[in-house]
Amino acid sequence: MAVQKESFHQASPSEPFLLNCWYVAAWDHELIDAKLVARTILDKPVVLFKGDSGKPVALDDRCCHRGALLSKGRVEGDCVRCMYHGLKFDATGRCVQIPGQDNIPPKLGVSSYPVVERDRLVWIWMGDAAKADPAKILDFPYLRDTGWRGHPGYLHYDANYLLIVDNLADFSHLAFVHTKTLGGSEEYAFKSKPTAIERLEDGFRVERWHMGAPPPPFHKKVVRDAGQVDRRNIARMYVPGIFFMETLFSPAGSGAENGNLQSAKQYRNCQFFTPETSRTTHFFWDYLHDYALDDPNVSLSLYRSMVDGFNEDKAIIEAQQKTLEADPAFQMNAIVADAPLVHFRRTLARMIEAERAGLKAVAA
Amino acid sequence: MAVQKESFHQASPSEPFLLNCWYVAAWDHELIDAKLVARTILDKPVVLFKGDSGKPVALDDRCCHRGALLSKGRVEGDCVRCMYHGLKFDATGRCVQIPGQDNIPPKLGVSSYPVVERDRLVWIWMGDAAKADPAKILDFPYLRDTGWRGHPGYLHYDANYLLIVDNLADFSHLAFVHTKTLGGSEEYAFKSKPTAIERLEDGFRVERWHMGAPPPPFHKKVVRDAGQVDRRNIARMYVPGIFFMETLFSPAGSGAENGNLQSAKQYRNCQFFTPETSRTTHFFWDYLHDYALDDPNVSLSLYRSMVDGFNEDKAIIEAQQKTLEADPAFQMNAIVADAPLVHFRRTLARMIEAERAGLKAVAA
Amino acid sequence: MAVQKESFHQASPSEPFLLNCWYVAAWDHELIDAKLVARTILDKPVVLFKGDSGKPVALDDRCCHRGALLSKGRVEGDCVRCMYHGLKFDATGRCVQIPGQDNIPPKLGVSSYPVVERDRLVWIWMGDAAKADPAKILDFPYLRDTGWRGHPGYLHYDANYLLIVDNLADFSHLAFVHTKTLGGSEEYAFKSKPTAIERLEDGFRVERWHMGAPPPPFHKKVVRDAGQVDRRNIARMYVPGIFFMETLFSPAGSGAENGNLQSAKQYRNCQFFTPETSRTTHFFWDYLHDYALDDPNVSLSLYRSMVDGFNEDKAIIEAQQKTLEADPAFQMNAIVADAPLVHFRRTLARMIEAERAGLKAVAA
Repeated sequence: MAVQKESFHQASPSEPFLLNCWYVAAWDHELIDAKLVARTILDKPVVLFKGDSGKPVALDDRCCHRGALLSKGRVEGDCVRCMYHGLKFDATGRCVQIPGQDNIPPKLGVSSYPVVERDRLVWIWMGDAAKADPAKILDFPYLRDTGWRGHPGYLHYDANYLLIVDNLADFSHLAFVHTKTLGGSEEYAFKSKPTAIERLEDGFRVERWHMGAPPPPFHKKVVRDAGQVDRRNIARMYVPGIFFMETLFSPAGSGAENGNLQSAKQYRNCQFFTPETSRTTHFFWDYLHDYALDDPNVSLSLYRSMVDGFNEDKAIIEAQQKTLEADPAFQMNAIVADAPLVHFRRTLARMIEAERAGLKAVAA
Repeated sequence: MAVQKESFHQASPSEPFLLNCWYVAAWDHELIDAKLVARTILDKPVVLFKGDSGKPVALDDRCCHRGALLSKGRVEGDCVRCMYHGLKFDATGRCVQIPGQDNIPPKLGVSSYPVVERDRLVWIWMGDAAKADPAKILDFPYLRDTGWRGHPGYLHYDANYLLIVDNLADFSHLAFVHTKTLGGSEEYAFKSKPTAIERLEDGFRVERWHMGAPPPPFHKKVVRDAGQVDRRNIARMYVPGIFFMETLFSPAGSGAENGNLQSAKQYRNCQFFTPETSRTTHFFWDYLHDYALDDPNVSLSLYRSMVDGFNEDKAIIEAQQKTLEADPAFQMNAIVADAPLVHFRRTLARMIEAERAGLKAVAA
Repeated sequence: MAVQKESFHQASPSEPFLLNCWYVAAWDHELIDAKLVARTILDKPVVLFKGDSGKPVALDDRCCHRGALLSKGRVEGDCVRCMYHGLKFDATGRCVQIPGQDNIPPKLGVSSYPVVERDRLVWIWMGDAAKADPAKILDFPYLRDTGWRGHPGYLHYDANYLLIVDNLADFSHLAFVHTKTLGGSEEYAFKSKPTAIERLEDGFRVERWHMGAPPPPFHKKVVRDAGQVDRRNIARMYVPGIFFMETLFSPAGSGAENGNLQSAKQYRNCQFFTPETSRTTHFFWDYLHDYALDDPNVSLSLYRSMVDGFNEDKAIIEAQQKTLEADPAFQMNAIVADAPLVHFRRTLARMIEAERAGLKAVAA
């Protein structure tokens, strides 16, 4: 297998985002108690809230009058009132009250964005609202399946979202970055190779087995009597930055590779990367397990192990972001293991290009 | 009454300042004990001090030799010595000593600015010194009138000064921003309308009455037995950013609106906004009362109430500044209550334009 | 003597550096225990380390694969392993291992820089490696001479290195900046003039005597019975920013100026200024004494006095940097004492220009 010599697509700060797709904007629990959440998404300051009807609302976080923050306002019914001069906006963004003024110009208002709450996640559509089809939201059934338990997480990243996608495209980094948390041993990088790399129309699928090795620390912490294990990771990544992973640990030699899973302990992991700006990212995630469902401390231990592991990634990737910003002329070099990454970046770039060509055609 | 649909003049970071006018540079107490005060005014770093003669001096805060800060120097007589290599400058900015060198080039020196100390304020003229006429300084007699007592204040703002001027141009914000401090109730925005809006050649005058309402918290704190009151605010704003307000509280129904003021308690408020840069502002203010002149705690309570209230504005306005900077293409929308604001911005823009046309004519 | 009226060469943030010369990159003690030191030099992020062979290595601090920091990696033998995906690089920067991949493209690697360890200093050559001749490293024999003792120091400066060079080019600043630390009295500026200013091909030499004055505080602290002294400073500055100074204090009237040095106490000072970026500087220094060699507290006292004094400079120079950045149009004015400074800046500018002309000629 030869190293891929051509330079490949790099994220750059000025690169456009894919607009016509669903991004995770929040966990549902962030919007309880009529809380106004200020969150910048794809460079747009957005305010998210749920009023009396319980339906989530997303508006520009900028009063159309003087630019004050609506997120510092007050929820009234399904409306939000700007607490500078008191203008009130309904869930569609239309201005419905101006204190001391009877006549409200019909066009006065702020932009609103389609939002859908599903399986504890609040999704937002930043592109053409007419194309916002909830059927296009990717399904991750484990969040609603009582056979699985997890603890939702959030991390903020000072890095472009694609650098985090890259990170997940090559699991050999487990060996070096996460030796003491999520990985286990450097052997993982040298001995376990992906058994299958599948290029998908909107992402990739990678399967990787590591046979007869000690379990990684995060698993050992909650399953104390785990001996040597066969470990399988099936990872799928979808545009614009959605990662699902199925992990299982089965006693070494128990035949998991032949479908014998009765002694396996399994995990389901979802990770959602939503660009805040071109150099910062919202990272939503959950790591669910299918055993010990009555013990909340298992979920909590796994949550904490993931935070520890993700912070190991974060340190590397945020430094990488600074390095890339400092010298935009730097060209990365692909190694063999980068095949999924290269495919993903090309796929996404092609979709963004097509979307922009469409916008230009409409404009012309 | 229709909403004004045209977009109106917005402050932008690159917008020029009005140069040929007096700005407040400091309170007199800042210059006691020969203290050197470093203060950037209209983007120019200035050092202010009073030497042995007691006359205030303003010079460029940059030694003409190597650019060291004169404000880190030493006052000697009416001169200041740079404490890097020891060059000494007199009150006009001329270099009068170079240690170890006998011959001083006559043109060696730093720029000086006209300054006038009046009624506890130190005013500076950043434009053409030949036009600096002290008679043009606006008179606010209450600062020297022993019938009034106050406590001088200063706040630094991370916002363009015109956003603060805007804030004072529409008192409906009292209802939403200052409900628990300076305002009192949201009713103020809905029920009390300005009774008079007067467009002045160099600003505006707004009068607003609120009849038969509970007094606002700041007044209630110092006048505990205040019942329902009739409240009158007369506000005047002058270019470049000078605000005077006369406030009275009279027992509800006592006929204040007909001139019966014998039971009224009155306040006089001055606020001076001096651009530090296009995105930061020096804010000098005093809030004076005409009763309980022997009780220093009344002044102190009012001072603290104002600080609390001004910090409520500051939080909103500094967020507004960030929002406007983040998207310079954003167009504000005027409501009816913005009439004074729109007039003020137009007036100031016209004066700045005229001043710049004059400068160009001279240059050509 | 007339003041030099012409404006002279100023450091600007965009100014190029002299590349083909040796810069100090580190003290040797920074690299013990296989420590990886991340240090930006002339805008290039570099990682420095010593592996098993004990020879210092300098590589680009950026993995050629994905841009991760090699300084967060791991030393293995004389190699460094990137701890993101495990690529290993030898001391020349060549990639020698890719985990999970057998074939390593021969050109895969990172840049390396010539480094030389000499007399406790680690020197680096950022220009054309073929020209890196260790014989060009300036000799400061006192660092290896057991007749002298010191304590190596480091300070980081938020200022262009030339502003620090300027500082050392005119010792009249001792009188104003360092009155209570390194200077002693303001008389130094007024009465002591340089007795000799020698323009060198690659710098300057200044000699300055101050006869019959109290010793400066730093000397008085370690030589408590020092009475009035004759003080001589011989300072030499070399491109790109290397400063050597010989200082002696002899009892006043003991004839030091005629070569009678038997009662003198002497110091040797080296200072090395290495640009980190155009607006920040690494400052390495040592201040050595030739007496009380058995008493470590003398070295320590002198070290601390120098830190105090250098921090006085730092406060002025970092403010100066901000002032110059704020207004690039500002023109400094030279005084008579600036002759060495002006010569040095011109010399360096000429050398940089020649180097760049050479680069262009090669390119064309």
